[in-house]
Amino acid sequence: MSLKAIVKTTREKGFDYMDVEMPKVGPRDVLIKVKAAAICGSDLNFYVWNKAFCEGLVKELPFIPGHECSGEVVEVGSAVTHVKAGDRVSFDSHIPCGYCRQCQIGRPHTCTNMGLFGHNMNGCFAEYTVAKETGVRKIPDALSWEAAALLEPLGVVIRPVLESGVSMSTVCIAGCGPIGQFAISLTSALTASRIFAVDINPQRLALAKEMGATDLIDAREKPNFGDYLINETEDGLDIFIDASGNVHTINEGLRSLRFGGTMYMVGNPKEPLVIENPMRKITLREVTIKGNWGRSMFETWEKAENFLLSGKINLDKIITHRFPMSEYEKAFEIAKSGEGCKILLYPEE
Amino acid sequence: MSLKAIVKTTREKGFDYMDVEMPKVGPRDVLIKVKAAAICGSDLNFYVWNKAFCEGLVKELPFIPGHECSGEVVEVGSAVTHVKAGDRVSFDSHIPCGYCRQCQIGRPHTCTNMGLFGHNMNGCFAEYTVAKETGVRKIPDALSWEAAALLEPLGVVIRPVLESGVSMSTVCIAGCGPIGQFAISLTSALTASRIFAVDINPQRLALAKEMGATDLIDAREKPNFGDYLINETEDGLDIFIDASGNVHTINEGLRSLRFGGTMYMVGNPKEPLVIENPMRKITLREVTIKGNWGRSMFETWEKAENFLLSGKINLDKIITHRFPMSEYEKAFEIAKSGEGCKILLYPEE
Amino acid sequence: MSLKAIVKTTREKGFDYMDVEMPKVGPRDVLIKVKAAAICGSDLNFYVWNKAFCEGLVKELPFIPGHECSGEVVEVGSAVTHVKAGDRVSFDSHIPCGYCRQCQIGRPHTCTNMGLFGHNMNGCFAEYTVAKETGVRKIPDALSWEAAALLEPLGVVIRPVLESGVSMSTVCIAGCGPIGQFAISLTSALTASRIFAVDINPQRLALAKEMGATDLIDAREKPNFGDYLINETEDGLDIFIDASGNVHTINEGLRSLRFGGTMYMVGNPKEPLVIENPMRKITLREVTIKGNWGRSMFETWEKAENFLLSGKINLDKIITHRFPMSEYEKAFEIAKSGEGCKILLYPEE
Amino acid sequence: MSLKAIVKTTREKGFDYMDVEMPKVGPRDVLIKVKAAAICGSDLNFYVWNKAFCEGLVKELPFIPGHECSGEVVEVGSAVTHVKAGDRVSFDSHIPCGYCRQCQIGRPHTCTNMGLFGHNMNGCFAEYTVAKETGVRKIPDALSWEAAALLEPLGVVIRPVLESGVSMSTVCIAGCGPIGQFAISLTSALTASRIFAVDINPQRLALAKEMGATDLIDAREKPNFGDYLINETEDGLDIFIDASGNVHTINEGLRSLRFGGTMYMVGNPKEPLVIENPMRKITLREVTIKGNWGRSMFETWEKAENFLLSGKINLDKIITHRFPMSEYEKAFEIAKSGEGCKILLYPEE
Repeated sequence: MSLKAIVKTTREKGFDYMDVEMPKVGPRDVLIKVKAAAICGSDLNFYVWNKAFCEGLVKELPFIPGHECSGEVVEVGSAVTHVKAGDRVSFDSHIPCGYCRQCQIGRPHTCTNMGLFGHNMNGCFAEYTVAKETGVRKIPDALSWEAAALLEPLGVVIRPVLESGVSMSTVCIAGCGPIGQFAISLTSALTASRIFAVDINPQRLALAKEMGATDLIDAREKPNFGDYLINETEDGLDIFIDASGNVHTINEGLRSLRFGGTMYMVGNPKEPLVIENPMRKITLREVTIKGNWGRSMFETWEKAENFLLSGKINLDKIITHRFPMSEYEKAFEIAKSGEGCKILLYPEE
Repeated sequence: MSLKAIVKTTREKGFDYMDVEMPKVGPRDVLIKVKAAAICGSDLNFYVWNKAFCEGLVKELPFIPGHECSGEVVEVGSAVTHVKAGDRVSFDSHIPCGYCRQCQIGRPHTCTNMGLFGHNMNGCFAEYTVAKETGVRKIPDALSWEAAALLEPLGVVIRPVLESGVSMSTVCIAGCGPIGQFAISLTSALTASRIFAVDINPQRLALAKEMGATDLIDAREKPNFGDYLINETEDGLDIFIDASGNVHTINEGLRSLRFGGTMYMVGNPKEPLVIENPMRKITLREVTIKGNWGRSMFETWEKAENFLLSGKINLDKIITHRFPMSEYEKAFEIAKSGEGCKILLYPEE
Repeated sequence: MSLKAIVKTTREKGFDYMDVEMPKVGPRDVLIKVKAAAICGSDLNFYVWNKAFCEGLVKELPFIPGHECSGEVVEVGSAVTHVKAGDRVSFDSHIPCGYCRQCQIGRPHTCTNMGLFGHNMNGCFAEYTVAKETGVRKIPDALSWEAAALLEPLGVVIRPVLESGVSMSTVCIAGCGPIGQFAISLTSALTASRIFAVDINPQRLALAKEMGATDLIDAREKPNFGDYLINETEDGLDIFIDASGNVHTINEGLRSLRFGGTMYMVGNPKEPLVIENPMRKITLREVTIKGNWGRSMFETWEKAENFLLSGKINLDKIITHRFPMSEYEKAFEIAKSGEGCKILLYPEE
Repeated sequence: MSLKAIVKTTREKGFDYMDVEMPKVGPRDVLIKVKAAAICGSDLNFYVWNKAFCEGLVKELPFIPGHECSGEVVEVGSAVTHVKAGDRVSFDSHIPCGYCRQCQIGRPHTCTNMGLFGHNMNGCFAEYTVAKETGVRKIPDALSWEAAALLEPLGVVIRPVLESGVSMSTVCIAGCGPIGQFAISLTSALTASRIFAVDINPQRLALAKEMGATDLIDAREKPNFGDYLINETEDGLDIFIDASGNVHTINEGLRSLRFGGTMYMVGNPKEPLVIENPMRKITLREVTIKGNWGRSMFETWEKAENFLLSGKINLDKIITHRFPMSEYEKAFEIAKSGEGCKILLYPEE
């Protein structure tokens, strides 16, 4: 038996949409009929074959990309007991080993033997996909397939937002791609008193406003927007969440924080981070910088599900495009253009 | 009436030891007969007149430096009720206003209107000194004058050590001056499983061993000691406490931390902090960097007093020199040489 | 010069509305022209002269009750610098000493030498009142006198709500008086997924619904409402906030909590708390019980101000009655009846 | 093939020492040759057949009790990859399902589908035992079999001690059985400034002194020892750890806590907990009561291993008796008498 899938076959730009063999279901595997999948930045890296990103990560070609999805369980391995055929599920693309030191001290999301679904093993841009038992979660009946496909990326940023205490605080969020928009939406729902959104794309800033940003900063017009943030806050900003990965932006954020303020680095910087005057920016001001990679597993998944169910995150605005998987090329070209926000892919019916 | 004091009179190297007028005691002031005082790095900056340090800080000359001390209350202002003549006291050199936003959100130690005893007002290198009511604390009867004079510098580092959870963890402490030695001693008392000490001065490393360091790293021999730390720990270091202010050292520390590890920046860096590959060092590894300036006021003072009382910090090793104030020049030249550790000054009897 | 005030003159039911002497302004005092004041349960205790409550607390008669208010600064003592005549202010009725162990370990709100404005010293049910410098805070320009008079009671419950992590959790709030209504309103603003409100008064339950409760429980109909809570939640309730002080209610709450759930005791129980089967209710389930008395000083005041400014707490529903101080008797009889919610008093113009 | 085991065969006092069949090794099982096992209070309950304890817990007879042990891996199931034959291991007797809400919100140690090794499935009082993959941990080479057999009970109390911040605080520990002795030893290692130990058995109090208690309280002589604790501390006790389960003791503890103090309930109370004047004991004083059942999995296991390796817990004093399994009757009669502390059982060589 075969199925349709988007496949990375060569170390250059592009994918193929082709028939592949139905995967085998091991004892701890869950076979899922994909209902909705979403494009993430790393999928785009595979599409354009960003060498710096792909070389260390991809073990062998061909492989099926995609790691944000929802679907229906079709078959479960012999050792699987917590889900069964017919269940509606989503799953975490991080597959921790359970036994390394990180796993054992309560940090499975930074497992040092991590399996990465859709990165170093086949993913979900296909009619069917095989997930690992440990990451699969049933989703609430009332949660749509589309919403469930976004639990993964929402989960990346829900943790810093929840732990940072945004309520009635001043918050700046830089980088208004999907992660940034989720952050703005959560921060607004959690009653931040002021939400500054930073980007260089007017469309994304406009969307940020709809998500709840109270102040828009176009970084092309205000490259040194730190001055503005300092002026607009009493003793500096309480919290800065960087989803841009831009090192100049991170520096503007650092210098605008109040004594005791916190910088969350969620975006991945590609250049050296040069902090001028670290004595003033970090030590004397007692600033905290926190790197944030992944979802907690699974402390915050339930909260992400409940947020999506509550309607407090306006998915209608976040999901800007939808395509059948066969039209993957259109979808990825739009993703590449920076236009729109979250793009969904569907298997053909 | 007059008294003897060490005075900064000119914007160049040196102090004067001279008679000054007895200070007035305002309604919220406490007049203290100094029993023991200690030399801090900022006093040394005043001595050599490090322009970069002094210019912004010093309001006018002449002024009396010194801010770490203990003494006996001689007289209290009309509004002071919690101490009285005869009480044995120490005090915090930070004098928060109580009403700025930092003070009101529970961060008086980073008050934005901070008075700095011995910096922008007269200090304690004198027979008598005037402290502000809010910072004065009675000391336990069993605590010696010498120990009490060290409550201030001990307090700088007790907060990060207590909050970082060093028990049965791997910790590296860089910079084995007084602050670093206190950190090592506390970390050892609190049962860290392994304590790496980093310095370039063999004498200080030898002292670090006596304070409880389990592994000594001479950074001249091992400039890239991050490799060593990575090799010696399972998945990287749990905690790095920088008391050196050296940016290369901080970078070596950052790259040696485990996923979820923490870097405390206690030393003040004087150069830009250039972090190569911040994606790997901070974001992906979920590292936290925490700036640490001052003592909490006064959450950890009692703990500092108890630690000194307990005998778990070997002050006999930390206090390496003692001088009468009239011999201030010898004292400061030794401080300048980097020889020894903590140097005490005493008023003439 | 004299002023009108509500005065407790005898150890029996009732107050007097009379002329009293204008208070003296000490060096650390702030004289305030009262703009709005609110009735609290303890004022009602003074009114009816609840012996058990009053005897230990009241030092001498006559005294002026009232401790929730806002007003304009008229005069400040010689040592006061952070406010001046003309400033709009509110203040905390707790007056910590600053120097006892509780104050020094960061818990001034449970100072062991606490002065209690309007309890053991004159309060604010008067045209003018004298507050202590340390507790006085300027209020934002946009905050109304009425809203500012409610900062005090709102502050009692904002701390447990903020620290308990109600977002997307299941929460039960018992006792729908003013404190309970504030808790419901905050919990709803902070995106609890389900809010159960418990009371025996249908009017208060109706108000709870308007504040954001999703489920109303009339404890007369469902005295053993713990069963209901257990049925309606997956593995028990996440958080229970008791503002009733009723020990049966607290027990129902305890048995309905999930493993690791938290009970906040904000209401003051007047009877012994008998916990049947504490092994199951506390130990095995790892339940936490937290007593909560007062406002943090002043970590959460700013958040309370911002919440009131944000419009997320519907004060129009919470403030049910307004009277001039001369009609204090009507006001207290309504308070006694349990009808309505928050009752405000105003000085005559 | 058969093996020797201690077996519970009837619902009355006593065990049998007999040959049983070698257990089958399922795909996720680990077969372990037992090297050392320790007697816990629940094993004693099985021995004397304490109905109240046993009825709900025991599924069927016969079964093999015992759940604290160390041993060598002999064989692993087909799905097991993190340990192999020859590895030295210990394991947690709690076997969480991984998928219930408790497991998914980061609380596997209170899994609602918990398997209990040696309780509702066969345990380790035998030559060989089968453990579940998820709970098995390799132990450090330098850790003795005896020490490793105590990781389980040490783990019960290491969590509250580590999280409660005992350093330079006043702590009272009630109930000086093995759990209490571990608590005293840890608390002492972590530099509590004062450690009060409460028991009614002079031998156990003497042992408490050797473990580091600074003050011994014989509760037969001082039944109302709360008065004593209040007198001996400045504003009350910082932390009370109850390992007695005695409700009178818990009440004495509650009333002796300072404002903001914490009571850990580790012992399982068998009677109703009647708290007189809860307003004063809990609400006004902002006391926290925390139930504590089990080990975190596995955040604190590494810390427990390191503590045992460090020599800071004097096991020579805690292990008071050793018997071959065939002499189980002597061992359990001593356990029943309350004499001694921790009793070890060994398979015959």
